Amino acid sequence: MEEMLFDPEDLREYAISFLTNFEVPENEAEIVADVLISADLRGISSHGFSRLESYYGRRLSEGLIENETELEIERETPTTIKLNGNNGMGQVVGYRAMKKCIEKAKNAGLAAVTVNNSNHFGIAGYYSMMALEEDMIGISLTNSQPLVAPTGGRGRVLGTNPISVAVPAGDRYPYVLDMATSITPMGKVTQRKERGENIPEGWGMDGNGKATDDPAVLEEEGAIHPLGGRTEKMRGYKGYGLSLLVDIMTGVLGGASFGTNVGDPSGKSEGNVNIGHFFAAMSVDRFRSLKDFKKDMDALQKDMKETPKTEEKDRIYIHGEKEFEERERREEKGVPIVESVAESILEFGDKHDVSEDLKPLE
Amino acid sequence: MEEMLFDPEDLREYAISFLTNFEVPENEAEIVADVLISADLRGISSHGFSRLESYYGRRLSEGLIENETELEIERETPTTIKLNGNNGMGQVVGYRAMKKCIEKAKNAGLAAVTVNNSNHFGIAGYYSMMALEEDMIGISLTNSQPLVAPTGGRGRVLGTNPISVAVPAGDRYPYVLDMATSITPMGKVTQRKERGENIPEGWGMDGNGKATDDPAVLEEEGAIHPLGGRTEKMRGYKGYGLSLLVDIMTGVLGGASFGTNVGDPSGKSEGNVNIGHFFAAMSVDRFRSLKDFKKDMDALQKDMKETPKTEEKDRIYIHGEKEFEERERREEKGVPIVESVAESILEFGDKHDVSEDLKPLE
Repeated sequence: MEEMLFDPEDLREYAISFLTNFEVPENEAEIVADVLISADLRGISSHGFSRLESYYGRRLSEGLIENETELEIERETPTTIKLNGNNGMGQVVGYRAMKKCIEKAKNAGLAAVTVNNSNHFGIAGYYSMMALEEDMIGISLTNSQPLVAPTGGRGRVLGTNPISVAVPAGDRYPYVLDMATSITPMGKVTQRKERGENIPEGWGMDGNGKATDDPAVLEEEGAIHPLGGRTEKMRGYKGYGLSLLVDIMTGVLGGASFGTNVGDPSGKSEGNVNIGHFFAAMSVDRFRSLKDFKKDMDALQKDMKETPKTEEKDRIYIHGEKEFEERERREEKGVPIVESVAESILEFGDKHDVSEDLKPLE
Repeated sequence: MEEMLFDPEDLREYAISFLTNFEVPENEAEIVADVLISADLRGISSHGFSRLESYYGRRLSEGLIENETELEIERETPTTIKLNGNNGMGQVVGYRAMKKCIEKAKNAGLAAVTVNNSNHFGIAGYYSMMALEEDMIGISLTNSQPLVAPTGGRGRVLGTNPISVAVPAGDRYPYVLDMATSITPMGKVTQRKERGENIPEGWGMDGNGKATDDPAVLEEEGAIHPLGGRTEKMRGYKGYGLSLLVDIMTGVLGGASFGTNVGDPSGKSEGNVNIGHFFAAMSVDRFRSLKDFKKDMDALQKDMKETPKTEEKDRIYIHGEKEFEERERREEKGVPIVESVAESILEFGDKHDVSEDLKPLE
């Protein structure tokens, strides 16, 4: 798999041009592009620019996503909103929903927002991190198409349903958890297949429930295990419980699809995929002085980092730290995109009269 | 390990008598006893009656816990409270804090409460489940003494820091997640030791960071792995991230101890252990009609249960279901307590002039 390096600003401009070409309004295309390129910069390529065709271009071109996002307030109180995404772009829905949530939390101390009728919104961490600018704790959850089996089952009934929580710190990086509740997202399985590699024993099973190390089998017919894996011994039921919780807070509480009914936003589902999101924001200073809180966030990080190491590791990380460092690196050196994926996107763009050009860095 | 069966009401009465003997007020002793016996009824014996001596009796007799619990409001808004537990009984603190949280959520739609200067509060699920009576979603978190290593480390720096979330359903049982964020609580390691059994490879390591299957070694000098285990491959860093999150929401946000500073409430720490809790409650009907929500909670459960099974399982469970069934069984047949533990508690009680007697069922 050859990769090419791109200037992140070039990727952003191309994405905006690509989306506006499908009649996504300029200001909305900017939001989508920012969420996508943020993923690339943070090293989460599976949720970035490379999905421009499969998750967005194809669905826009076939009229399966509304190009203009009309977010509708269905219920509202001083601390809560229930939104309807009206099948708009997931990133625009997510960005605006979290903005509203943060505004409410500024007044009320904490707030929660649910959304139905949305689409794939990219990395969950983008939205939780929006709360950091206001020194708040941010939470972002979404459900997704069924790929994961519950403990004891072999069918796909739950999404990889990510949980993201962002917490401000002082001199150190904020804490940013952004994790699939399954052992792996499907993107990493596909990546292994494309590289001709096996997947580790314990990630998933074939359609008959037998363990498999073949990524093609898992991708085509199998199911991924929740965090903790297949066995009781290693507590796979906890990961299953977390995945179910995300489906409850997004799909059920949001009035969206849930379980086996969630559509596949990767261009495969014909109708509205009706994905649900949940956002929350909480003001730190309702509980403690921000200064003391940040000092203790730094102290907790120090405590972790100073733990004696195992022989295989020489450094202990805090969640989000690798991604902040990767962002600095990629802003300087460029963002890698798999050559064949970039070519496919450009070809799709050409076919649909996207006039912007995109060249890799020399 | 011989076990004896007890009538849960006998255990409750003995516990109340035991606690009031240490000058815990009657109404507070009733709360502690109810939390403990609820754990026993739900099948979580490690957090029930059998801790009466080690976690409570010894600390009360030595004056390390206040017998009377004076919960102090340090900050309050219509949606939030910061409480100081003033080193009272963890169960009394937890019960009253969650009560206040639910009252606020009735008005505000959602509410969150943090507490510092508390002690071991028993099962986290007791408090999250209090929200069910009001058709709310309840959240309960606590930190605990360091026993878990972060990914890449071999020292004890994080607690087994449980997460509990309870969600009402319709005709089916509510969803009740109540999970340590580590692979195992230490209680199960001790249990294996007492039974002369090994622990599964992958639960933890010795003091030098080498994998161990010896429960005595893990208990004495080693550290438990977070959910997901030791390796990157199986995503141990996610369990580590969840454990850290619990410490942030309880210890750091609550202004309590966190990381390596959390005291050991099992009678070993000399001073105030300063444990932190976090509680939240959220009204379902601010987002959806309760009727629709409950209908969908049942449908989601049905979806899980109807998944085709793996060859090793014939039933798929929802979180909390086993415990509700166990409660029905134990209410009828009695609660098993390890004989030597019961004897030790009774002996301790005798020594401290507890007049109540306790006899096993015939």
